[in-house]
Amino acid sequence: MILASTIQYANNPWEVREASFDSRNLGKYETIFALGNGYMGSRAATEEHYVGEKRDTFINGTFDKFDADEVTELPNVPDVFQLRLRVHDQPLDLNTGCVTDYQRTLNLQTGELTRQFKWQFDDRQLNFHSSRFVSFHDRHVLGSQITITNDGSADLPLVFQSGIDGQQSNSGSQHFNDWEKRQYEGKVLQYVAKTNQSNILFVITAGQNVMVGKNSEIVKTRTLMPRRQLLQEFTIRLAPGESLVFEKNAAIFTSRDNDVLYPDKESLQQNGLQRVDQLMRDGYQNNLQASISAWQQKVWEKMPITIDSPDNMDQLSLNFARYHLHTMTPAHDERMNVGAKGLTGEGYKGHTFWDTEMFILPYFIFNFPDAARKLVKYRYLGLGGARRKAAANGFKGAQYPWESAWIDDGESTPVWGAADIITGKATKIWSGFIEQHITADVAYGMNEYMNATQDHQFAEHFGYEVILDTARFWTSRVEWHEDKQQYEICDVIGPDEYKEHADNNAFTNYMAHWNMQLALNLIDRLKQEEPLIYDRYDRKMDLVSLRQDLTDRLAKLYLPQPNTAGVIPEDDAYLSKQVLDLKPYLDGNDVGALFDHFNLDQVNDMQITKQADVILLLYLFEKQFPAQVKHANWDYYEPKTTHDSSLSMLTHTIFAADLGLKDQAEDFYERARLIDLGPNMKSSDEGIHAASIGGIWNMVIFGFGGVRYLAGQLRINPNLPEKWRSLDFRIWWHQQELHIHETQDQLIIKNLTGTAPVHFEHEGKEYSVDDTLTIGLKQTAPQ
Amino acid sequence: MILASTIQYANNPWEVREASFDSRNLGKYETIFALGNGYMGSRAATEEHYVGEKRDTFINGTFDKFDADEVTELPNVPDVFQLRLRVHDQPLDLNTGCVTDYQRTLNLQTGELTRQFKWQFDDRQLNFHSSRFVSFHDRHVLGSQITITNDGSADLPLVFQSGIDGQQSNSGSQHFNDWEKRQYEGKVLQYVAKTNQSNILFVITAGQNVMVGKNSEIVKTRTLMPRRQLLQEFTIRLAPGESLVFEKNAAIFTSRDNDVLYPDKESLQQNGLQRVDQLMRDGYQNNLQASISAWQQKVWEKMPITIDSPDNMDQLSLNFARYHLHTMTPAHDERMNVGAKGLTGEGYKGHTFWDTEMFILPYFIFNFPDAARKLVKYRYLGLGGARRKAAANGFKGAQYPWESAWIDDGESTPVWGAADIITGKATKIWSGFIEQHITADVAYGMNEYMNATQDHQFAEHFGYEVILDTARFWTSRVEWHEDKQQYEICDVIGPDEYKEHADNNAFTNYMAHWNMQLALNLIDRLKQEEPLIYDRYDRKMDLVSLRQDLTDRLAKLYLPQPNTAGVIPEDDAYLSKQVLDLKPYLDGNDVGALFDHFNLDQVNDMQITKQADVILLLYLFEKQFPAQVKHANWDYYEPKTTHDSSLSMLTHTIFAADLGLKDQAEDFYERARLIDLGPNMKSSDEGIHAASIGGIWNMVIFGFGGVRYLAGQLRINPNLPEKWRSLDFRIWWHQQELHIHETQDQLIIKNLTGTAPVHFEHEGKEYSVDDTLTIGLKQTAPQ
Repeated sequence: MILASTIQYANNPWEVREASFDSRNLGKYETIFALGNGYMGSRAATEEHYVGEKRDTFINGTFDKFDADEVTELPNVPDVFQLRLRVHDQPLDLNTGCVTDYQRTLNLQTGELTRQFKWQFDDRQLNFHSSRFVSFHDRHVLGSQITITNDGSADLPLVFQSGIDGQQSNSGSQHFNDWEKRQYEGKVLQYVAKTNQSNILFVITAGQNVMVGKNSEIVKTRTLMPRRQLLQEFTIRLAPGESLVFEKNAAIFTSRDNDVLYPDKESLQQNGLQRVDQLMRDGYQNNLQASISAWQQKVWEKMPITIDSPDNMDQLSLNFARYHLHTMTPAHDERMNVGAKGLTGEGYKGHTFWDTEMFILPYFIFNFPDAARKLVKYRYLGLGGARRKAAANGFKGAQYPWESAWIDDGESTPVWGAADIITGKATKIWSGFIEQHITADVAYGMNEYMNATQDHQFAEHFGYEVILDTARFWTSRVEWHEDKQQYEICDVIGPDEYKEHADNNAFTNYMAHWNMQLALNLIDRLKQEEPLIYDRYDRKMDLVSLRQDLTDRLAKLYLPQPNTAGVIPEDDAYLSKQVLDLKPYLDGNDVGALFDHFNLDQVNDMQITKQADVILLLYLFEKQFPAQVKHANWDYYEPKTTHDSSLSMLTHTIFAADLGLKDQAEDFYERARLIDLGPNMKSSDEGIHAASIGGIWNMVIFGFGGVRYLAGQLRINPNLPEKWRSLDFRIWWHQQELHIHETQDQLIIKNLTGTAPVHFEHEGKEYSVDDTLTIGLKQTAPQ
Repeated sequence: MILASTIQYANNPWEVREASFDSRNLGKYETIFALGNGYMGSRAATEEHYVGEKRDTFINGTFDKFDADEVTELPNVPDVFQLRLRVHDQPLDLNTGCVTDYQRTLNLQTGELTRQFKWQFDDRQLNFHSSRFVSFHDRHVLGSQITITNDGSADLPLVFQSGIDGQQSNSGSQHFNDWEKRQYEGKVLQYVAKTNQSNILFVITAGQNVMVGKNSEIVKTRTLMPRRQLLQEFTIRLAPGESLVFEKNAAIFTSRDNDVLYPDKESLQQNGLQRVDQLMRDGYQNNLQASISAWQQKVWEKMPITIDSPDNMDQLSLNFARYHLHTMTPAHDERMNVGAKGLTGEGYKGHTFWDTEMFILPYFIFNFPDAARKLVKYRYLGLGGARRKAAANGFKGAQYPWESAWIDDGESTPVWGAADIITGKATKIWSGFIEQHITADVAYGMNEYMNATQDHQFAEHFGYEVILDTARFWTSRVEWHEDKQQYEICDVIGPDEYKEHADNNAFTNYMAHWNMQLALNLIDRLKQEEPLIYDRYDRKMDLVSLRQDLTDRLAKLYLPQPNTAGVIPEDDAYLSKQVLDLKPYLDGNDVGALFDHFNLDQVNDMQITKQADVILLLYLFEKQFPAQVKHANWDYYEPKTTHDSSLSMLTHTIFAADLGLKDQAEDFYERARLIDLGPNMKSSDEGIHAASIGGIWNMVIFGFGGVRYLAGQLRINPNLPEKWRSLDFRIWWHQQELHIHETQDQLIIKNLTGTAPVHFEHEGKEYSVDDTLTIGLKQTAPQ
């Protein structure tokens, strides 16, 4: 079903709008207008209810298993944004009556979501305006303010119920008990619930307040406690021309929070009551203002990025990405990470994938290294689970889970997926068993963090251990083939998940090799330069035998080489499979449309690639491959790629930009940035595509800005689209803040910190900057 | 909120209609149009979804606890009646577009629910017709058939999803895991789920089939397995004037069923597949016909009841009641009973109250004694739980739970209820602790069953034990008051639940006395007439000491006597409390409206009675009280009764009829029978009022038919409303089937069985009938 788009982009770069209401588009806006602060995320469900709504609010890290056979997931928290309004006994429902002047707007700069419309039903007329936010100033806080004006000429009788609604679930799975509900003095509601398996306490407190004009009347207020609900019902007579203003100020605390001193029930309840008491005294507008200021100070003014382009969408899509990166990323707590759908939907259950290391971490490394540190520290804290997984599979070292949740949950990939159209049974999800490149990806992200930040303290205490133990995993994972006298890695899934049980997936083998080489270099460097640290790790991890294993494996690990045409085989079997013309299946932008015609076994037997695989390899290790090989592989794999993963087009953008394929780079960029933000009204139903959101920044700064960290070295080869007049941004590198200004003919770099010179590479040459450096640019020829 | 009524009664006595669609009335029709067969019940949720729908299906007896702190409840089973239809991409939603010729009809005789309407949206026009049933022939079976006709002049593109939807819950509490989903050959879907705490396996199997006209086309069929859902999606092009017919034949089996040989997963799955295979071969119409025949043979032809009245509602409301009595009553299994909301809603969680003994059992005793036997056997099987409850409270014998669920669940009353408007806290529900008359009520029902049926085998093995051990409970429950030299029963709740912690509630004291007297008489009779049985029980239960305790308690138990005005005090404190004029609070038929103004403590301190209390006592023990006392109490309590319980007005009807207060009897009768069937669109949202449904039969046969069993004796004093020409019915008494025909001036009784004479009382005189007896009636003067 392709629905008519109702999305509208403001002329300024900060606002995205829903221009008219269509209940078929609920999922789209619930996701892209979601509010959050890294601690919590809340889908932008409308105040009134509609069939098909997903009224999700999640608190990061509060994982729970519904039952022993399911994997852990973020539970859907009781809702505070719901409002059930009857206007003269008629439920407010925008599918009925006459709706005019509809507009819902997310302001990316302020984090405020506003909604307004006029509604007429029979002779009732009202003007509705709502505002809501999740505080970026105080992560426990959320609030809303609703103003309803009687536009008619007679009194308007209104009844509405609002409060805390615990009937929410994760698509029918309920994680919470219905512990305690309490109302205080007709103003404050408090709902206490506990997750069933993980025993995490949630205390949700909401203060509600109604004000009406002087000729109007609050006829009745009463408290209702239906099952799992705690509501107040307000009966109001609204005089013509007058308004009611309904304010709700709420706070959520859990026993998993790292900023509460006593995580017991009574203390959390006290926290909630005190916080809400303060919020009520400050009032909605002041609470919102505090959040706006926090966004301004912590994000927008601190690390501004400006694209001077005639196309407002360039700046807008970047702002959109940055807004969502901050709403989804737990910069406050290293015991959790970024979910593949952020905190905006039930898809992927809040689990963390390689998406973090490959596509999200770079933004934080370069812009907010403190947050990046938390994201990589999470992997260090997950070493226990990774070691358990390795041991359970008969391997050494640390094998990272394909999907991870709470730090000690270990492998969290579900085992069963969608229906197989041929057999009628649910399909087995193999990723948790054999999508093993994740272990090298984790080491990759860890290493990039350490390279960029030079955070030696982190490296010494946490980073080295991850690099050594992931490498050790690979030494045990590779299989010796006596006939070929080489090590191979068989039966894996590479980034191209349409090829299950692949042998020698090129990406996996190269990443494993890189990971082992990194560890070997580290061991040698430590022994030479930091003998005390070497000794410590040697005692703990036996570096001598590890070094021996690494040397042996590295020498004999099979790395697939380009064939005579320059094409690197994605895996041993790929190039001999049947080729399918994908065009008929890729029209209509319907992700996964292929599977209406073929099952996974059939797709497995054709040269069809779900997402950048060999291309990703060539992008990550650009120095290892000559331009001719890159072009040959681009020409070969690009037409065979369905981009059914949202992680794909961004890589194609950057790679095409690197190759000087400007038109293709810009074409992929235009498409990739619209995965969530674009006119497809169904693509985001399950939540935002976190990696793709990270990818927008990657495309701008890595792809067009030409910034890259390669083997520990900063490289800047600007490659702006022709219509861009300039790209202006800052990055952190080796604890120096650089201000970089790129135009079509100049690259200006200022070292704002200036306490040490920063070395970087530009077009194959070495530069150093300790104050300001201006480099003239010539038009780049295709490689 | 008082909504405009959309209910319509056909000119025949078998059909109730929803005359036009209003989504605010969903709950009303979901309940009163619910389908069932005693094994399962299914609310009549519409095919398409609406906000606020309650899509409940329950299998009787399959109780589960959501968590350890909650009481057990009937879990809401995955739904098979749902259909998500998009017409040219527009979701079918009767709040939108133009709806004409709408009609939904429940046929009480056939148990078929049909729905039809025309819907126009933009240029799309269709005619929708659906039929569904829950089989009365094969209790595991349910089915539906939907016909959609393209009324427009162009092809109509339709997409619909239907299957098995396990995202249902009990208002957010999920009882099932999501075990296994499987599709077979594109036609049959099977969903396996297990309750979380009670480990009951459910296997739901549905066969689906679509047929289209010859110029139309089934474009695509695919299977979808979203979380907790198993759906098929059909994409259809419907030519102008042509129809699609969508048939669904389904079967539900559980591991708790008493008619499955092997309750393991594989066997239940095989059962489901075989049953659905047969259903698909027979086809929807044949399956429906088998159910219609079963209703005809097992109910309507077997025990016809005919009211000859100019008001069609008299017969229609009786048929409505009988239809629901059979859909809610587990005539197939004695390990479960009738829920206070039948199987039609989540209210009262499927639990059984005294409603069964007082208001539902009589219908079955007189009409279907085999089913009645199962209902009383349930109480025998509950003796273990009743003894545990007594012991836990420091009492002897058997103390029956106020609410009971599965036979060995014991007390199942929840502890916390709605909000107290003054304190803001949830109110404690005291019924489970101190509403103790239930124990005598159980003995009362048991005794009536034994009296009416003369089922000696039952009495000897089950009934006597219940009567003895309930009486023993009372011997330990009564408290000796040394000062007054009498036994009292303090701190109870009587039928009037607005008086918590009452001392010497008249109803409770009289019932306890009756229960003990019954046991004493039984002991003496057994000793004299059936010494072998006496010996058996004496060895088991020490009848000598029980007899001594009974004699002592009976002699000294305080029984509240009429005061000088003839009024029996409801309890010790009642008559000295403040009197409130109830009129302002009883307008608008809003049950519980009082509690918007007062909390329970305040109501407790006033002479306000929730439901017949002293009146019920006088009705049950009519021979113990003179007419003057009855009138005095009627005059006193009637104006103080809010009838906030649906168990109240029916008692007032019968009692007024007994007193010859014809106008008042008919007025209460008219109101009582409309509690569910009437124009109040909100009263039935939580489910049907099972006791009130039983009460309709009670009012007709007991109230106007003048039939009563009193102290084991049948009495027939016809008291027909003046407009009734005749009342014609059958009853079973002492294993003889009587055909009774009452007119305004004659009572004709035929003994259809004729193997023994039946004795009965009429207007104070004894009669006996072994063939046919005609008695002339004179106009009854008021007592």
